[in-house]
Amino acid sequence: MLDPSERWRRFHGHDWKASWAGLLTFAELPYTEDAAELDGVDVAVVGAPTDELVSNMPGTRFGPRAIRAALPTTAYHLETRVDWSELLRVVDYGDAPVVPADAAASHRAIEETVGEVAGAGAIPVVLGGDHSITEPGLRACAAVHGPVGLVHFDAHTDTASTLYGRELSHGTPMYRLVEQGHVTPARYVQIGLRGYWPEEAEFRWQAERGITSFLMPDVTRLGIDRVVERTVEIAGAGPVFLTVDIDVLDPAFAPGTGTPEPGGMTPADLFSACRTLAAQLRLVGVDVVEVAPTGLADRTALAADRVVREVLSGLALKVAP
Amino acid sequence: MLDPSERWRRFHGHDWKASWAGLLTFAELPYTEDAAELDGVDVAVVGAPTDELVSNMPGTRFGPRAIRAALPTTAYHLETRVDWSELLRVVDYGDAPVVPADAAASHRAIEETVGEVAGAGAIPVVLGGDHSITEPGLRACAAVHGPVGLVHFDAHTDTASTLYGRELSHGTPMYRLVEQGHVTPARYVQIGLRGYWPEEAEFRWQAERGITSFLMPDVTRLGIDRVVERTVEIAGAGPVFLTVDIDVLDPAFAPGTGTPEPGGMTPADLFSACRTLAAQLRLVGVDVVEVAPTGLADRTALAADRVVREVLSGLALKVAP
Amino acid sequence: MLDPSERWRRFHGHDWKASWAGLLTFAELPYTEDAAELDGVDVAVVGAPTDELVSNMPGTRFGPRAIRAALPTTAYHLETRVDWSELLRVVDYGDAPVVPADAAASHRAIEETVGEVAGAGAIPVVLGGDHSITEPGLRACAAVHGPVGLVHFDAHTDTASTLYGRELSHGTPMYRLVEQGHVTPARYVQIGLRGYWPEEAEFRWQAERGITSFLMPDVTRLGIDRVVERTVEIAGAGPVFLTVDIDVLDPAFAPGTGTPEPGGMTPADLFSACRTLAAQLRLVGVDVVEVAPTGLADRTALAADRVVREVLSGLALKVAP
Amino acid sequence: MLDPSERWRRFHGHDWKASWAGLLTFAELPYTEDAAELDGVDVAVVGAPTDELVSNMPGTRFGPRAIRAALPTTAYHLETRVDWSELLRVVDYGDAPVVPADAAASHRAIEETVGEVAGAGAIPVVLGGDHSITEPGLRACAAVHGPVGLVHFDAHTDTASTLYGRELSHGTPMYRLVEQGHVTPARYVQIGLRGYWPEEAEFRWQAERGITSFLMPDVTRLGIDRVVERTVEIAGAGPVFLTVDIDVLDPAFAPGTGTPEPGGMTPADLFSACRTLAAQLRLVGVDVVEVAPTGLADRTALAADRVVREVLSGLALKVAP
Amino acid sequence: MLDPSERWRRFHGHDWKASWAGLLTFAELPYTEDAAELDGVDVAVVGAPTDELVSNMPGTRFGPRAIRAALPTTAYHLETRVDWSELLRVVDYGDAPVVPADAAASHRAIEETVGEVAGAGAIPVVLGGDHSITEPGLRACAAVHGPVGLVHFDAHTDTASTLYGRELSHGTPMYRLVEQGHVTPARYVQIGLRGYWPEEAEFRWQAERGITSFLMPDVTRLGIDRVVERTVEIAGAGPVFLTVDIDVLDPAFAPGTGTPEPGGMTPADLFSACRTLAAQLRLVGVDVVEVAPTGLADRTALAADRVVREVLSGLALKVAP
Amino acid sequence: MLDPSERWRRFHGHDWKASWAGLLTFAELPYTEDAAELDGVDVAVVGAPTDELVSNMPGTRFGPRAIRAALPTTAYHLETRVDWSELLRVVDYGDAPVVPADAAASHRAIEETVGEVAGAGAIPVVLGGDHSITEPGLRACAAVHGPVGLVHFDAHTDTASTLYGRELSHGTPMYRLVEQGHVTPARYVQIGLRGYWPEEAEFRWQAERGITSFLMPDVTRLGIDRVVERTVEIAGAGPVFLTVDIDVLDPAFAPGTGTPEPGGMTPADLFSACRTLAAQLRLVGVDVVEVAPTGLADRTALAADRVVREVLSGLALKVAP
Repeated sequence: MLDPSERWRRFHGHDWKASWAGLLTFAELPYTEDAAELDGVDVAVVGAPTDELVSNMPGTRFGPRAIRAALPTTAYHLETRVDWSELLRVVDYGDAPVVPADAAASHRAIEETVGEVAGAGAIPVVLGGDHSITEPGLRACAAVHGPVGLVHFDAHTDTASTLYGRELSHGTPMYRLVEQGHVTPARYVQIGLRGYWPEEAEFRWQAERGITSFLMPDVTRLGIDRVVERTVEIAGAGPVFLTVDIDVLDPAFAPGTGTPEPGGMTPADLFSACRTLAAQLRLVGVDVVEVAPTGLADRTALAADRVVREVLSGLALKVAP
Repeated sequence: MLDPSERWRRFHGHDWKASWAGLLTFAELPYTEDAAELDGVDVAVVGAPTDELVSNMPGTRFGPRAIRAALPTTAYHLETRVDWSELLRVVDYGDAPVVPADAAASHRAIEETVGEVAGAGAIPVVLGGDHSITEPGLRACAAVHGPVGLVHFDAHTDTASTLYGRELSHGTPMYRLVEQGHVTPARYVQIGLRGYWPEEAEFRWQAERGITSFLMPDVTRLGIDRVVERTVEIAGAGPVFLTVDIDVLDPAFAPGTGTPEPGGMTPADLFSACRTLAAQLRLVGVDVVEVAPTGLADRTALAADRVVREVLSGLALKVAP
Repeated sequence: MLDPSERWRRFHGHDWKASWAGLLTFAELPYTEDAAELDGVDVAVVGAPTDELVSNMPGTRFGPRAIRAALPTTAYHLETRVDWSELLRVVDYGDAPVVPADAAASHRAIEETVGEVAGAGAIPVVLGGDHSITEPGLRACAAVHGPVGLVHFDAHTDTASTLYGRELSHGTPMYRLVEQGHVTPARYVQIGLRGYWPEEAEFRWQAERGITSFLMPDVTRLGIDRVVERTVEIAGAGPVFLTVDIDVLDPAFAPGTGTPEPGGMTPADLFSACRTLAAQLRLVGVDVVEVAPTGLADRTALAADRVVREVLSGLALKVAP
Repeated sequence: MLDPSERWRRFHGHDWKASWAGLLTFAELPYTEDAAELDGVDVAVVGAPTDELVSNMPGTRFGPRAIRAALPTTAYHLETRVDWSELLRVVDYGDAPVVPADAAASHRAIEETVGEVAGAGAIPVVLGGDHSITEPGLRACAAVHGPVGLVHFDAHTDTASTLYGRELSHGTPMYRLVEQGHVTPARYVQIGLRGYWPEEAEFRWQAERGITSFLMPDVTRLGIDRVVERTVEIAGAGPVFLTVDIDVLDPAFAPGTGTPEPGGMTPADLFSACRTLAAQLRLVGVDVVEVAPTGLADRTALAADRVVREVLSGLALKVAP
Repeated sequence: MLDPSERWRRFHGHDWKASWAGLLTFAELPYTEDAAELDGVDVAVVGAPTDELVSNMPGTRFGPRAIRAALPTTAYHLETRVDWSELLRVVDYGDAPVVPADAAASHRAIEETVGEVAGAGAIPVVLGGDHSITEPGLRACAAVHGPVGLVHFDAHTDTASTLYGRELSHGTPMYRLVEQGHVTPARYVQIGLRGYWPEEAEFRWQAERGITSFLMPDVTRLGIDRVVERTVEIAGAGPVFLTVDIDVLDPAFAPGTGTPEPGGMTPADLFSACRTLAAQLRLVGVDVVEVAPTGLADRTALAADRVVREVLSGLALKVAP
Repeated sequence: MLDPSERWRRFHGHDWKASWAGLLTFAELPYTEDAAELDGVDVAVVGAPTDELVSNMPGTRFGPRAIRAALPTTAYHLETRVDWSELLRVVDYGDAPVVPADAAASHRAIEETVGEVAGAGAIPVVLGGDHSITEPGLRACAAVHGPVGLVHFDAHTDTASTLYGRELSHGTPMYRLVEQGHVTPARYVQIGLRGYWPEEAEFRWQAERGITSFLMPDVTRLGIDRVVERTVEIAGAGPVFLTVDIDVLDPAFAPGTGTPEPGGMTPADLFSACRTLAAQLRLVGVDVVEVAPTGLADRTALAADRVVREVLSGLALKVAP
């Protein structure tokens, strides 16, 4: 396992690696592509850099690399005073071997790579990629843990049966996962919906399946704490997958995304929600998707990095003494 | 009337037009420049692409095209479950024939073009352009409907008598419209004011005329719902013009504008206010101005597009069964 | 047919349309989507906005719209003193009805739409889109005119048999068109090759088929005029398709493209070459591809617009009295 | 003293200077580099353009120039109806003579230049530069006024004893100023902390010294008014230095900064807090730091300009009749 | 006169001012707005920040400030080994007091301000602004020196009698100056023309007046040295004004301009031409126009700065011992 | 040694890694930080990400990461038909463990890391970082090979004895290396100088030491081939270090650099020169410096990547059968 800080430790006797230097890994974590090294690992980050199935602006193929390049920081969470790096063993497991212009092959590669993590008993945290990658990622987790509950932050429901006539799409994964039996709809909660998509038909299907939705006005009216409480109740004690479409944030906070919708959540609400959910639910898989970076020090990628750190802090709180 | 989705319908048997392809019109609406085709139309979008009268950064001449190119979506409003495309007949009436470096000629062209819409009994929704275009646009509506009430979202009052010694300016239209008798000051409400402009003299004139102002701290203290309620009371039952200077939003949400002022409204507040006002007042004209786009997938233009969709949703709610 | 200048003519009595206002069409040309209106048309511009088959950065789906929005100018060519708008009838035929995330459907739509132009006796000028669209576009021309010669400006040969294991790709169209019999390899000339792709196998195939290549050092050594002379000799008297990958220009001149390669041509050389070739060959189809715009007033889109104008000037010179 | 509006006054008989024209000074104020001219001046703005000591992205060396170029406005504060230009004498005292790549020399130059202002009885408002410049700036004020209280808006505490093994750093000034005796820790309040830095050791030192911290969740829970009230109580009646790291704002509002941390304050809260603190405390020095501009009309620089104007409005309120 | 390096000299004993710090003046030159201080000055730089008369993208109002902020360097010209700062007395005379949205008033202010320089016997170097400012600037010089020859680098001739129906425009100054008698057409040379504007009528007028044009293909064919030689012969021994529209450079070298035209000159050619012309002609006035900066460290502004330095080096060569 | 393509090979049976996915290494090369693995390696790439010693814009600390992220391609050079990956063993040896805000410590780290490569018998190719890093890098090579000849592409000579009073600087390394005896001045050739820095004193020192300079006008007049020939003669048969400051290219081709100077070389000339020099000289070390990336798909970083590939192609030609 390659540790980006190792050379600093060797040369300087401490591991204060310059943030812009050294091997590029998520949160400056050790890196491995070897499933055998996942033994004893609690969480493994996996990249799923795709965008061939998007309906508007592409660019999420550059998401995982940008998230890894986002300004790193420590693992010590100011508010809760927990240090996830002391309580969890986390690694960067690299990217799934995606294939340009071949969404099906990429999905297979993602499913297998995430499956290696889940199979090793670690929680995969998948960095998208467009939202279509939740399908192979969650399926790989469900293959290990059985049907899962789903907590889904997003401006959109992504529950169309087809989009532009296509079954595989970043607008259809949740429909497909429910219909495939991998997500238990009664334990499926959507948070942050707003704007003008999808339409009547999709909401009808959702109602039939018993899926719970919190629209943005609900979040504002109830407050994020109450929404999280209700979500924990609905998702329940079983295994849960957490998927965060970064466009759940208002475009002011996450401008680099393909289908931005103004009127979204604040980072403070999203962060505390993710941390609490990670601490209170039994997460078996996580993804953060739809980051389409637009610059070098990308603000959207930074938000995605922080979402993952909040999840890690929540997981750490769960095991904290 | 040219329908951008027509070729998709013809070729594929459905109208799932790719958002980036086909004729560029507002919200992918049918396009006409023929006043005769406005018969039976409820709302017509008109571009007024000017910026020769600005006091700081130019660029709003590119506003209408950028708003039309903003990420389209459906006409189905998640929160209210109303679909404006089923309840209203809306068209894109193209741009007024503005003249480079000739603000007076451009104003005449805007007044006449908006007048064609108002004269046909449709509600014009004018896409600016700098705020000076409210003068010809509103005047064209007042020519049909008589003096109007005015609901005005903005960081600034735009009620100077002159700016930099000029009577025609993006800082003077509201003074001029009141003084010309087209706006009834007792039915004129300003929302979102903040910062450092205008000064004492302008506020004195406003007080003398009986204009109502909600500063940003008022919006925060009262809440947007109460501000809207009060606005509906003040604007009353007569014809009302709604003008939205996009800089009423905080620059985080609308960075592409010529005189940004930090500390502004959130999209959620602006959107719900516009929708409710459209549903409760008798709107005879609308404009959204001061969008100076800065990039390809422009966030400010997207916010402006959504403002118009909220107005359309409000108008739809008004006629919904 | 909708003429963007019509409203100016009607209102002001002249057609000095502001460049940023009015209906967005290529070179401010009249717009139609009706094949019946192609009668008597010499050249029709068609958009093919795709990028699902690229191997690196996507974004060419936004190419046609950006090229249409590039700074317009007159049709009077300073150097040759010819005005193509007086000698040719040119229209904008809109975009092919492409389908997001469905390259095969998009290719069918492009082939059919370009075929309508070619079938009407006009020369299609296709605005890409990634280079894969040369396959359906050229095929539509060859269906009318029989196998064609090919003049191909590009940094790369795009003659791989597969790329990343895929047959349909922006790296394979020329191989496929030759093998399908639509391009006569002895009449196929490549200009501007440089860098590190493709490899030995592709060059071997090219040699076997008798394809002619001018590498950038050849262009520098011989001069563009001699390269054009040789190209005219090789392409000969039959029908010829001209394909311009904008990455043939150095990235300094065309930064907005997916696979930039430093060391490329200058605009002056490319422009004069395209004009001369259009004047001396029997062009039956043209495309300009791989424009992935990165900003509002996009420099790469402007270069692409000027390439098309040079082709039009060349075609005009051919028929000039 | 050079007055940027003088030429307008001379030529046009009024001082409506175009915002983009004329000598570049903060808020279009008169400019001097002569300490003798500080006599009778209430506030003097000083630039401290450094970034050699940052730990992540550099760029704050361009901060002072960008803040001066931020969209100017009047001195009349809408909300409080006070005009600071009528109640205070404010000048731009230029930049400290910093030395490229020589942080120690730059610090000496800053300390001396700020000292000239403080020594003349004016309040220095220092435009950073990275946060390390608070050390020489505050020290120059403490040399005149004795140990000071400190109100510190920031995402980070900047109280490490060393950062990357260096004592001088933008992460250590507050530790050093306390330990040097220039800041009285019992009168030191931090507002806006969040995220993942610093760690346990620094918080332990802070607790030992009796420093007060309001984390972002505290700000949200208590409300900014209550936080300001408590801060006024803690900072007390003695001399106080106010330091505003612009990264206390959420990156949506202040994207141009070197160590952005999502989840920050809104401009409305920061502005009202700064104004109230300036009105209620005895400020002897102010700085606004960590502005690393990224564009021409820089949003972060604009926010910094407005912070200073709010401080000036607060100071004006203090002396208002 | 304010010298930006003075504080460095005072503090450090040398004048190695940091490029990004201190008073913003052209080339870090001393600054004055007092005509009395022009006595003995050889060259004075004057800003003319306008763009109200442009026909396409605005933004040149920000040109002078951006040119002053362009990366400074020394006054020692490597190639000729001349140091203009030792041989010439050069100052920055500030900006003309332009009026927003009032082109006529701005032109009057420019004419008067440039007239103060010319009247004092110094050569004005005017930083535009759009090309319309050549009219008042050159007129101010002709008022002192009588009708002048004109050397004009540009992609366009700017000799329309009206543009979009307007006489005052950035497309008409040269027509107007010739017709007003301020430019002697037989001594007027245009260099760098290309593309598609103007049209037949303008070229006919030019031919009638006896104006000489070198199109870009002429520059390429003859070489810049021969073009300069011919220009010197045609412009002759009398007073000459030099106007450089930065769009004479290819957009790769000068992207920040309102009407870019690909296929332009290289900096090396433009620089050597300007230097040689300054050394060999009797220049009485110079302007560099159409710089519309697009970023912080603006490449186009840098090119404009270097054009002025080359002119200064040429003027220095003329007086070098 | 970690091979970024390994997972593709394992999963798909081929190594067509998607360019944006997988471990980020230079040219997708295997990665190691273990000196023991350098055995048998011909060339090792080392990052030296610093910018604390620059005199203008910082940002080169982000250079190595951006160069590694530049669009990869194959190792097959079209023009010479050589594939360096078949003839050379090349690895990415990671970054030197630089320390933020501590230039001296960073230089030590660079010298030691480059020394590990040189000591293992491989040629280090150092990716800067600012030009100051040539000092430790070249010194590490000279420690192994003795005093070296130097071929230096740059707009500036970087031969000041001090800059802004500092001995360590990006403007002094060549002076220091000559004076330290590591560079033999008679075998030192500078290519591409232009503009306004340094001044007389530096050129006098250069003349005294017998350093050879080709200014840009020399390159234009002689042609790059002749300049290279002369350089090979002067540098001679002994060990040579090649340093390429990317600002030797015109800013059009390499905009992302801290001290851009218009009028520079073209990529075609620089590439062929580097390849020929690598093939004909005895290179013992190489660096490419001053890349300060400004965007995601950075053009300047791409140019730097291609410079290295040309060097590799030249080295391959040297050993080609």
